[in-house]
Amino acid sequence: MTEHGRTAPDSDACYRIPLLLWRCRLKKKQTNQNMNDKVNEKICEKVKIIPIGGLGLIGMNMTAFEYKDSIIVVDCGLAFPENDMLGIDLVIPDVTYLKDNIDKVKGIVFTHGHEDHIGALPYVLMELNAPLYATKLTMGLIERKLTEHNLMRTTKRKVVRPGQSINLGAFRIEFIKTNHSIADAVALAIYSPAGIIVHTGDFKVDYTPVFGDAIDLQRFAELGKKGVLALMCDSTNAERPGFTASERTVGKTFDNLFSEHRSHRIIIATFASNVDRVQQIINSAHKYGRKVVVEGRSMVNIIQIASELGYLAIPENTLIDLEQMKNYPDEQMVLITTGSQGESMAALSRMAADMHKKVSIKPGDTVIFSSNPIPGNEKAVSNVINELSMKGANVIFQNAHTSGHACQEEIKLIYSLVRPKYSIPVHGEFRHMKAQAALAESLGIDKDHIFLLKTGDVLEIGEDSAKICDHVQTGAILVDGLGVGDVGNIVLRDRQHLAEDGIVIAVLTLERHTGQILSGPDIVSRGFVYVREAEELMEEARSVVEETMDSCNSHHVTDWAKIKNSIRDSLSDFLWKRTKRRPMILPIIMEVE
Amino acid sequence: MTEHGRTAPDSDACYRIPLLLWRCRLKKKQTNQNMNDKVNEKICEKVKIIPIGGLGLIGMNMTAFEYKDSIIVVDCGLAFPENDMLGIDLVIPDVTYLKDNIDKVKGIVFTHGHEDHIGALPYVLMELNAPLYATKLTMGLIERKLTEHNLMRTTKRKVVRPGQSINLGAFRIEFIKTNHSIADAVALAIYSPAGIIVHTGDFKVDYTPVFGDAIDLQRFAELGKKGVLALMCDSTNAERPGFTASERTVGKTFDNLFSEHRSHRIIIATFASNVDRVQQIINSAHKYGRKVVVEGRSMVNIIQIASELGYLAIPENTLIDLEQMKNYPDEQMVLITTGSQGESMAALSRMAADMHKKVSIKPGDTVIFSSNPIPGNEKAVSNVINELSMKGANVIFQNAHTSGHACQEEIKLIYSLVRPKYSIPVHGEFRHMKAQAALAESLGIDKDHIFLLKTGDVLEIGEDSAKICDHVQTGAILVDGLGVGDVGNIVLRDRQHLAEDGIVIAVLTLERHTGQILSGPDIVSRGFVYVREAEELMEEARSVVEETMDSCNSHHVTDWAKIKNSIRDSLSDFLWKRTKRRPMILPIIMEVE
Repeated sequence: MTEHGRTAPDSDACYRIPLLLWRCRLKKKQTNQNMNDKVNEKICEKVKIIPIGGLGLIGMNMTAFEYKDSIIVVDCGLAFPENDMLGIDLVIPDVTYLKDNIDKVKGIVFTHGHEDHIGALPYVLMELNAPLYATKLTMGLIERKLTEHNLMRTTKRKVVRPGQSINLGAFRIEFIKTNHSIADAVALAIYSPAGIIVHTGDFKVDYTPVFGDAIDLQRFAELGKKGVLALMCDSTNAERPGFTASERTVGKTFDNLFSEHRSHRIIIATFASNVDRVQQIINSAHKYGRKVVVEGRSMVNIIQIASELGYLAIPENTLIDLEQMKNYPDEQMVLITTGSQGESMAALSRMAADMHKKVSIKPGDTVIFSSNPIPGNEKAVSNVINELSMKGANVIFQNAHTSGHACQEEIKLIYSLVRPKYSIPVHGEFRHMKAQAALAESLGIDKDHIFLLKTGDVLEIGEDSAKICDHVQTGAILVDGLGVGDVGNIVLRDRQHLAEDGIVIAVLTLERHTGQILSGPDIVSRGFVYVREAEELMEEARSVVEETMDSCNSHHVTDWAKIKNSIRDSLSDFLWKRTKRRPMILPIIMEVE
Repeated sequence: MTEHGRTAPDSDACYRIPLLLWRCRLKKKQTNQNMNDKVNEKICEKVKIIPIGGLGLIGMNMTAFEYKDSIIVVDCGLAFPENDMLGIDLVIPDVTYLKDNIDKVKGIVFTHGHEDHIGALPYVLMELNAPLYATKLTMGLIERKLTEHNLMRTTKRKVVRPGQSINLGAFRIEFIKTNHSIADAVALAIYSPAGIIVHTGDFKVDYTPVFGDAIDLQRFAELGKKGVLALMCDSTNAERPGFTASERTVGKTFDNLFSEHRSHRIIIATFASNVDRVQQIINSAHKYGRKVVVEGRSMVNIIQIASELGYLAIPENTLIDLEQMKNYPDEQMVLITTGSQGESMAALSRMAADMHKKVSIKPGDTVIFSSNPIPGNEKAVSNVINELSMKGANVIFQNAHTSGHACQEEIKLIYSLVRPKYSIPVHGEFRHMKAQAALAESLGIDKDHIFLLKTGDVLEIGEDSAKICDHVQTGAILVDGLGVGDVGNIVLRDRQHLAEDGIVIAVLTLERHTGQILSGPDIVSRGFVYVREAEELMEEARSVVEETMDSCNSHHVTDWAKIKNSIRDSLSDFLWKRTKRRPMILPIIMEVE
């Protein structure tokens, strides 16, 4: 027990609760008037909740909690580029607000090891060095990133366990065991001077998880009993009624499928990070006397980390190398592979397209998609299924997956245990957050107490009131190769234009003083039309530019900008009339003395 | 009754059955040996079935049936471009085989008026003038296209009715009433010298359709009783168990929704061509005292055609112009709009993005998606739902739609009525065709009698055997603006490259004889990097080109192709090292005397 009658959530917890933090909570126990006065003063303590990224979209999860000179940050995720972000590799949040307040930032706390929660870290750490706090597997995955980016030496890290608490400035953070599609996920109870904020991270309720304990519902209930100021709950599946099935049900499906398809090779595609899924595949393989090969770089990496850290138990002589596969008959093989989202360069897609160096799909192969397509990937997945089917594979894409996110009944359960004063739906698209808001309202939470925040909103929240009081700079920084933020709207607009109709370049060399054409105009195009079959069009385009130059000459136009504009306009008009296309027109004028 | 004891499928049918066609079927009725001999000779009659497009993908439906000097064509559809077909407007089938056999082509017969069945017609007619046969609404939609492309005068057309038959060369074609998500859909019974082939077109079984009759199951049964050689059946929903719900169930949903949301404006997005859906919205609107506005060009067009042809009954004073909307309170308005697939330029998307000139989304608006996302559009639809939600609209996207395609039980029903000797799944992706093949097998059809054809396969089929005997030229012709087929793989690859990392142009002017640089090198880029913030990089790139030219000079390289290659290589290496990007590098050398 601590001084304030609170049970330390974990008896090993080595962090003390700062004396000053919990005053506003003390009021129920105070008896003398003076103390009450003091408390009433303190009731108006406010904490600021600032989503730096991630609200209203999938990915880029990052939230700041601020109290006076303390800021703590929860998660530091990336987003994958939208379709119109041509050529972009990944997207990270703009952390200007945190950089501007770097002295206040006490640390970054992680809920779990998915890319949308840890992926931006290497980029953010270059601008914002802060100590990191995460559970063991999450930290293992983070450390791999830090090593790749040569950031291990300069970054303070602390591994925490579910049940443990840490103090960061004015905040205490308690890690609470949850379940998710990656092991070692935690929710956070953030103790602030304004009250307790519970942040679920991505979670589901799994009463029978494959590895480790079920979600610590008792602790959610205890916190609820004590009084929770605000609940920030995962919205991803808030549109789906019912309960998400236990991960263990997928294991049963695997057993059934292994039993049904005894005479064929089995190939299973799933998410690299779903260690429990991999464990269940290995279990079924072992049970049915099959060897396991793991294929796909991210899959190999994560399995290695998970085994080293003890999150994966692989029976001896089960895992073999891809090269050894040829030594075993098909009916003794299972391949676990990446590519469940139809990603064109992933192992399964390469197998399906006959572009994999070591594995070809054979008639009779049983290919199991142990995954659902992430929104936006449906068509790519379907294309891979079609290609596999055409090669004679028996493709199974139903019932071999369960979600990692809580459905409506689970969300209601958490609300009912935690009974927060305020509801702040997080994680998921806006529609999902709105669906959670409707659930919260149905559970009796005041509409005024539900906040659908946008990234950058500053929600000032305390026992007596909550309001959006400010908005800070946030945004999406595009990463393209080594460039972080050097591709913006102008470049993207150009790429979009180039992608649509290509480019037509009109180049000519002028004599500097007379403006006389010494060479050209030449017309060069790319991505516009197949030039060998459009020589006439190109020749006419050349004439159009010549005529434009003549006209400029006869009107004594000598300003290059004006000449270029005339070329652009006349060429664009000509090409539109002839082709109904609008390629980018790029006039280039060289000059010679 | 005709000479052969066959009931004319429609008493008004003005087409006679050619005497010669049905010999092989007569054997059961013949008694004398001579006749039997004659029949046995004829038993080996074969017809060729040649998919010109549409097999193994969605869209571009077009199939040829060939017997000696007769070819008939079923449908003439377009496909929408795949994601990697940058800048392409639409895709049409390569009809080289039909052009090469133009004298044989007796006509094009249509199953229904969707774009994937009629959309390629204007392009194909320019190469292949043939008479067209379609039901009334289908022909109405075709004629709109012909008018747009100025093809009405040169194209023979005949409107047919379900139940009617026509003779085309060696074939007789009977049109059989079906149900689908557009009115006036028909299946075809194709009577050939080799036997009867039943082609379902896109269909579902709707016992309670909104307009007109239910599918003519009795006729399918009659044909089955007589003996059907092959069934070509819609596969689209062959992976889905059960029955597709009647279109009328959506009407009930509308009534419920209109009753629930009496105090708000209702906006419903659906497929422009689903006339029955529009009818039901109008019915509910009328019932609940609302005026109807139609928005979106394709929606307005189809409603106009459907009303003119009597497929849509609009009560007086129900339909109003968009301009009149302001004269009515929100609770008396229904807007029917395009954009149910999240198409960026469609009316609903423009409303959601605040880019519509006349309609803004208001808090409280009830927006109903009366549609499911077509595979590949999921994310676009979700984005629109998010935008609408953010503007405070109440978005309903469940239970207000039913499919137009038969699910497994309906497919089994058709097979059980028709009892074909051979099964040829059509329409849908390969995975769907494969699912239908499994259904056919489960119903007792020999595996050897099920053909999963690919576009271009020539299936020679008769009572005694069927096999793929040839493969003809087919393919996808890309239409971009006015260009039909002038964008091929090279142009697309360039567009892909430009889209990924943009273009860097190195341009210089040389003295012709000495090879001395008179101007440049200049570096111009588009879509690569924001140049104002990358001046240093551009200056270094310029130096790299200068150094390359120096090196060429000192090695006496004068061949322009070699110089250009050197520039390309050195600049590409430099930019990769500095940015980890691979823009297209385009060296341009001008020369001056």
